[in-house]
Amino acid sequence: MDKKSENVVWHNHSVTHEARVAKKGHKPCVLWFTGLSGSGKSTIANAVDYLLYQQGVHSYVLDGDNVRHGLNGDLGFSDCDRVENIRRIGEVAKLFVDAGLVVSTAFISPFKDDRSLVRNQLEPGQFFEVYIDTPLDVCEQRDPKGLYKKARNGEIKNFTGISSAYEAPENADIHLQTAGKSVEQCAEYIVQALVDAGIVKASI
Amino acid sequence: MDKKSENVVWHNHSVTHEARVAKKGHKPCVLWFTGLSGSGKSTIANAVDYLLYQQGVHSYVLDGDNVRHGLNGDLGFSDCDRVENIRRIGEVAKLFVDAGLVVSTAFISPFKDDRSLVRNQLEPGQFFEVYIDTPLDVCEQRDPKGLYKKARNGEIKNFTGISSAYEAPENADIHLQTAGKSVEQCAEYIVQALVDAGIVKASI
Repeated sequence: MDKKSENVVWHNHSVTHEARVAKKGHKPCVLWFTGLSGSGKSTIANAVDYLLYQQGVHSYVLDGDNVRHGLNGDLGFSDCDRVENIRRIGEVAKLFVDAGLVVSTAFISPFKDDRSLVRNQLEPGQFFEVYIDTPLDVCEQRDPKGLYKKARNGEIKNFTGISSAYEAPENADIHLQTAGKSVEQCAEYIVQALVDAGIVKASI
Repeated sequence: MDKKSENVVWHNHSVTHEARVAKKGHKPCVLWFTGLSGSGKSTIANAVDYLLYQQGVHSYVLDGDNVRHGLNGDLGFSDCDRVENIRRIGEVAKLFVDAGLVVSTAFISPFKDDRSLVRNQLEPGQFFEVYIDTPLDVCEQRDPKGLYKKARNGEIKNFTGISSAYEAPENADIHLQTAGKSVEQCAEYIVQALVDAGIVKASI
């Protein structure tokens, strides 16, 4: 037994959430992008992140590229795994918010219940449902990964918008109709909504 | 079909990892604290986080408080769940590093293989194994949660150090012998190691 170590008085120091936020110069939140495959979620989320980055906001994007093969690499596409996929992303987003960041998530997340689950994990004002509203026919024509074609051929089962429901948000915090807008315009629209909500400051 | 939207050229913008890091003013990394229950992992991790915070470093702590009941709330203490617990924490830590932060994790993580798994998920120089080396008898005397007593009574099975092995790191990146040191001294020792490794700048 080390007598010396017993006699050292240990104090706890920890940084509160409020203190972290105070140093960032903006409020933290989750931008939960939802929309059909090919609607532009990931592209727009990254463009928003880019604008925020330029304004000195501490931000990050969670999307298929960095989540599906890592944290959620053990999950498939069963109903159970789909719910768990969204649950974990919500929990990770919550940790990023606790750390003081603006975190965007870009997943189809077609079901209202799953999105509500995430909203309820967060404090009021920290969760923004961002509905990327691009018509199905536009998404299907883009078909950037050839998934709609496979879904139509029956090669992919339970494909959102074709053979599985997409439950569009009814009261999204940010409802973005992308038709006729460039990515830049879409991103600016969302950043302006964040300015209006008091999350970030106006860039000018 | 919306003709207008078809004609809009969409450009991809995204912030690279290097660009995120450049704006933080320090390098990102994982401080993977490992040590016996009661060794001081969480207390010291939070004290390190506090020092880093005061120096303007963007940091965060993952520990039982914010992970066990959230992201890993579905996991128990079976061998399988234990491995999955560490795997997920490693993946989340990797995301925080990608976002440019210094992230500390404070879990017993008794097995070398599990810690190696996490090390291998990260780039060289981004993972610091921090061995909080407090003798078992000191930990047991502290017994802040009364767990050692329960383990000795047989109320808790497979308790690290009593009825389950703790595989101490042989070549920890930071080996901290806590005997005779205050929490502040322990935290300063670790921050100095980060300065020496070029992760953060000296505070003076």
